[in-house]
Amino acid sequence: MNRSTSSPSMPVAQTISGLSIGEYLIRRLQEHGLEDIFGIPGDYILSFYGMLEKSPINVVGCTREDCAGFAADAYARVKGLGAVCVTYCVGGLSICNSIAGAYAEKSPVVILTGSPGLRERTNNPLLHHMVRDFSTQKDVFEKLCIAGAELSDPVTAFREIDRVLDAVVRFKRPGYLELPRDMVSVVPHLSHVFPTQNTTSDPQALSEAVGEAAQLIENAEKPVILAGVEMHRFHLQDELTALAEHTHIPVAATVLGKSVIRETHPLYVGLYEGAMGREEVTKYVEESDLVLMLGTFMTDINMGVFTANLDPSKCIYATSEQLRLKHHHYHGITLPDFVSELAQRKVTCSKRTIPDGIRMTMPAVGEITDKPITTQRMMQMINPLLDDETIVIADIGDALFASTELVTQGRSEFLSPAYYTSMGFAVPATLGAQTAKRDARIVAVIGDGAFQMTGMELSTIVRHGYDPVIIVLDNHGYGTERWLHPGDWKYNEIHPWAYSKLPEFLCGGTGYEVSTEQEFHAALLKSWNDRDGMSIIHVHLPENDASTMLHRLSSRLGARV
Amino acid sequence: MNRSTSSPSMPVAQTISGLSIGEYLIRRLQEHGLEDIFGIPGDYILSFYGMLEKSPINVVGCTREDCAGFAADAYARVKGLGAVCVTYCVGGLSICNSIAGAYAEKSPVVILTGSPGLRERTNNPLLHHMVRDFSTQKDVFEKLCIAGAELSDPVTAFREIDRVLDAVVRFKRPGYLELPRDMVSVVPHLSHVFPTQNTTSDPQALSEAVGEAAQLIENAEKPVILAGVEMHRFHLQDELTALAEHTHIPVAATVLGKSVIRETHPLYVGLYEGAMGREEVTKYVEESDLVLMLGTFMTDINMGVFTANLDPSKCIYATSEQLRLKHHHYHGITLPDFVSELAQRKVTCSKRTIPDGIRMTMPAVGEITDKPITTQRMMQMINPLLDDETIVIADIGDALFASTELVTQGRSEFLSPAYYTSMGFAVPATLGAQTAKRDARIVAVIGDGAFQMTGMELSTIVRHGYDPVIIVLDNHGYGTERWLHPGDWKYNEIHPWAYSKLPEFLCGGTGYEVSTEQEFHAALLKSWNDRDGMSIIHVHLPENDASTMLHRLSSRLGARV
Repeated sequence: MNRSTSSPSMPVAQTISGLSIGEYLIRRLQEHGLEDIFGIPGDYILSFYGMLEKSPINVVGCTREDCAGFAADAYARVKGLGAVCVTYCVGGLSICNSIAGAYAEKSPVVILTGSPGLRERTNNPLLHHMVRDFSTQKDVFEKLCIAGAELSDPVTAFREIDRVLDAVVRFKRPGYLELPRDMVSVVPHLSHVFPTQNTTSDPQALSEAVGEAAQLIENAEKPVILAGVEMHRFHLQDELTALAEHTHIPVAATVLGKSVIRETHPLYVGLYEGAMGREEVTKYVEESDLVLMLGTFMTDINMGVFTANLDPSKCIYATSEQLRLKHHHYHGITLPDFVSELAQRKVTCSKRTIPDGIRMTMPAVGEITDKPITTQRMMQMINPLLDDETIVIADIGDALFASTELVTQGRSEFLSPAYYTSMGFAVPATLGAQTAKRDARIVAVIGDGAFQMTGMELSTIVRHGYDPVIIVLDNHGYGTERWLHPGDWKYNEIHPWAYSKLPEFLCGGTGYEVSTEQEFHAALLKSWNDRDGMSIIHVHLPENDASTMLHRLSSRLGARV
Repeated sequence: MNRSTSSPSMPVAQTISGLSIGEYLIRRLQEHGLEDIFGIPGDYILSFYGMLEKSPINVVGCTREDCAGFAADAYARVKGLGAVCVTYCVGGLSICNSIAGAYAEKSPVVILTGSPGLRERTNNPLLHHMVRDFSTQKDVFEKLCIAGAELSDPVTAFREIDRVLDAVVRFKRPGYLELPRDMVSVVPHLSHVFPTQNTTSDPQALSEAVGEAAQLIENAEKPVILAGVEMHRFHLQDELTALAEHTHIPVAATVLGKSVIRETHPLYVGLYEGAMGREEVTKYVEESDLVLMLGTFMTDINMGVFTANLDPSKCIYATSEQLRLKHHHYHGITLPDFVSELAQRKVTCSKRTIPDGIRMTMPAVGEITDKPITTQRMMQMINPLLDDETIVIADIGDALFASTELVTQGRSEFLSPAYYTSMGFAVPATLGAQTAKRDARIVAVIGDGAFQMTGMELSTIVRHGYDPVIIVLDNHGYGTERWLHPGDWKYNEIHPWAYSKLPEFLCGGTGYEVSTEQEFHAALLKSWNDRDGMSIIHVHLPENDASTMLHRLSSRLGARV
């Protein structure tokens, strides 16, 4: 796990001169641990692409810009920082949705984009790719990013690059950098001092907050930790495990936080998803007299569409954005400092028992028959294959709901846009995750509707010889919507594709088409052992197939549609 | 040609009550001539989808939202109004680029989107699909649309729908309507009066301007009309032809205006593209003592990257946004009124001769050999097939540059995003145009890079049994960029796809793979005569193949990259 981005080892007060704006940008990205960048070239960004291609950063060309955005997002989730490089407007405005997802789910992605040269802009001509005026693209990304800058002034360009990258790393949200094409090679005539300040907590506030939290823990009889997505983003998995082990406090996770602690850990109790989740876990969490919500966001999907029932006066709520103990707030304390300090404090508290059977165990596969394959049976067959090196990527819909039942092992990771829930994340995310971790065994589970949106990004996966296992769940349409809005609606139907023939079309990989348990199992094992290239398994599902979680969700969400 | 949108035949002062907000919206869209709508359902828009599916409007489900946007844009170009219906954020933010293109190129597209219900928004919860706050999507589209409204108040909802639709039709730019999901079925308790006002010109200003223009024309010795895209958008093709024929003034067109007058018309001289275009036309236009620029925008691609050399004191410049005679401006005059009045005035002026050879003639095909096929030879073979019922759709790059040399016949249409130049327009635009004109013979020309972005929308074309001829120009990458930024750059390379095998993958259509003149010619004729389904021709081009226009462009644009 690369932690350079949460506490970057920056040269102290090093001055720099002689670099162009483009070169400085590339250097700073490298110092933040970036080794690969995703994107598509276009004429307003070609000279910077040339610079990138000559640099040590590896340029991964994608088929579409939005796929490059998803890939950069997944890369950031695995590696700590991601970047996407696209041309002006036709490129930039094609990644709005991917970047919005990174914003919503706190993924640190840097957007690099070209724009018309400043010298071309005199007399306000209608340059190609322009929408309304020169600033339209920047105006749009202001709504979708934590920070942004147009690098139009050599005097401030380096400082602006520093400011935007620092904001991205600190808040784990996307940042925007626009390079007018005639600024890329400009060398500012000034010596620049690298930023050295690290964000640190107010020591007195930190001490008071940790002291109070420790007291609450010591007094608690039935405490629980509810761990969320920011434990991943700030790489606090080890601190979380240490805190749990020192205090013996049981840990539940949200859907977005899934895999933050290995799900075979004796202190892990399961996913807390309000009324959408398993009743045993819901009850265990809601009966607690102290809930440490660490890096957890109160989203509707995370929290089971607002059925979560947590009393603030029994909660410690710590995220990068706020720290609240019961009903009062502390300011000036970072999440990593709070969690680390609390873990080091070695607080003791009463050892809360974990009842037998609260933790979900995936049933053994048992006999594999020639019956039609279901998502539930698929997960039972995938589960024993998971190990330390596996990354599970789940797209939206029942691909996600069913996959939440997988039990991740050790450092295995689980990636899914479980809050923003944008369909089509999984295949480009597979490209991004595999680029970040070349040796990982990646399995991606994707519904047919989602696959039709971005599945052709497998092209880039084939091109690089990557070997993920792609499982396409074919139920002839937008299956989740059938449960949310019952009725014989034609709009949920989609055109059938012969997914298993994709390798012929993309000139690489191996395809399988399965309908029964035995067929799926055979294809899965073959794919898993095949490290020569990607595998795609086309799974024909019964039309009414649904995981237990989708059943629960539809009864909760359906009423609102 | 449907003209209902430029002068809608609205019921006068008809009052209406008892309709829900969703029903009123559907009714108004129908009254504007809309018969089909493109999109993808999602949970925040499901109830409106249900309403649409029960209405006479045909819902065309696409594979991706951005494709739905491009399809709606092309539909609007052919039929006068287009619409796309998507869910909140994950849907809406996926069409930013398509809508930006419609804005830039003046295509009247209505965006309909769902959003969380007003009752769900209390206490500012983190609802799924939300980015920063509830208004993020609306804020983004404010930058990309001519008008927008959130239909959150029953008292104003009908008026807001009227206002946005009127702006779309009047300015030929996209408009945004957001429906909180709990407002769709709300029936406002008021009787609503349909809007009756039509935008009309100030009669005195109109009379003065037309009089002055007539005088200028009468005094001119070497006048020329330069016709642009708004002649298409406002359906002024007949008025343009009438004006030219009454006055005997020769007509040139911009690239975006191509096909505004049939290119075999005796008064047509060719495409004016500044130094990018043919020297004969450039000289003819620039030597004129009066240039009537009608519906023409001064864009860099249209005008040959600013090499156009037109003296304002010799110009009449009329668009929907301004009317300028020499250096003075008239206000309060619509473009249709100005053009119609001028055409009816029957002004006479000296009959300017059109020199032989100024009009480009496509050379006859001649002997078809077994030499490698080139874009230039392809166009020579396509050209004789064009007739009144043909629509030519060109994607960006040499697909566009080469296609501009085609000579459109009669009412044949030429669609291309020639100003905004967003790759990946052509295949979804084919879906849109074919939906608007079921019987049209559509031929689409697309580079391989563009095809990899959106080509899978052929899925929907196959699904509906449409029969366009899709020609994929395969030069192994982003060919135009090789010319703009010379060098052995890897970033221009893309992964090869077996395009001709797509019919097997999509379970429909016929594929061809060709490399020589004879092979292309045979495949073209077979495809042209095959009305049973779509045809896709995979054309292997020599890597250095380029049209003459691309050669000229690269020498002009290359220096700026």
